[in-house]
Amino acid sequence: MKESVKIEGVIIQPLKQMADKRGSVLHMIKNDSNLFKQFGEIYFSEIHSGLVKAWKQHKKQSQNLAVPLGAIRLVIYDKRPNSNTHGRISEYILGRPEDYRLVHIPPMLWYGYQGIGDQTSLIANCTDLSHDPEEIESLSDDTRQIPYQWKT
Amino acid sequence: MKESVKIEGVIIQPLKQMADKRGSVLHMIKNDSNLFKQFGEIYFSEIHSGLVKAWKQHKKQSQNLAVPLGAIRLVIYDKRPNSNTHGRISEYILGRPEDYRLVHIPPMLWYGYQGIGDQTSLIANCTDLSHDPEEIESLSDDTRQIPYQWKT
Repeated sequence: MKESVKIEGVIIQPLKQMADKRGSVLHMIKNDSNLFKQFGEIYFSEIHSGLVKAWKQHKKQSQNLAVPLGAIRLVIYDKRPNSNTHGRISEYILGRPEDYRLVHIPPMLWYGYQGIGDQTSLIANCTDLSHDPEEIESLSDDTRQIPYQWKT
Repeated sequence: MKESVKIEGVIIQPLKQMADKRGSVLHMIKNDSNLFKQFGEIYFSEIHSGLVKAWKQHKKQSQNLAVPLGAIRLVIYDKRPNSNTHGRISEYILGRPEDYRLVHIPPMLWYGYQGIGDQTSLIANCTDLSHDPEEIESLSDDTRQIPYQWKT
């Protein structure tokens, strides 16, 4: 896995893929996982090849992301003033079949992702709180407030 | 939607798809849904075009299915002796973009599905109990115990 810098509170777990000639079965998260606190919502986000969805920050909600189709470059920026990894940026490749894993993103981190590979990718997100626009901050993908340049 | 016969306890809800030029956002289930009781597990199952995964019966676990990629024919058979729809078989088409919806399958029903369309499809299942092989019964897709003939 390409992981340039570790960020405090971000947890990555391998996920099982059970091969079957009719189609694989892919784990995501169970109620006995140490990453599961409570159930907020499960939803999906498509990202077309090469395009970017960024940046988001959740004040309260934690994200649990997996990519059951295609592949993405996930980028996380730690702007938390009291974090041991304050100021760091980390890249994670998520996708099938080599990089099928769960990434837990705690609140207050900034994150975004880019579709890589040829096809549209699908991100699944299992959160611990249901959607509340009041707890979300957004910045454009080319903001100067985050020291990262998305690849073109 | 193609729905040949209604089955007691099976609930179908439309799901929102929010169009975005970078890729759609697709709802599945939230903690305030009337179909959400408690969180067991979220996992995915691929099904290749034309192939069948059938039949399964859960004694305790409820299924909440959505198909964020491709399309499937879901078939449910009601063999519950005390059901008002005992003996009935119902077909449901689930998939993108026209048939994106959530199907709730209560325990004790038999179900299976077939990939339709040209591509591999992806089924997401959000259950109310985590996986327990002890509560699952299986029959082969060509069993004579279920009066259904999968299309070839």
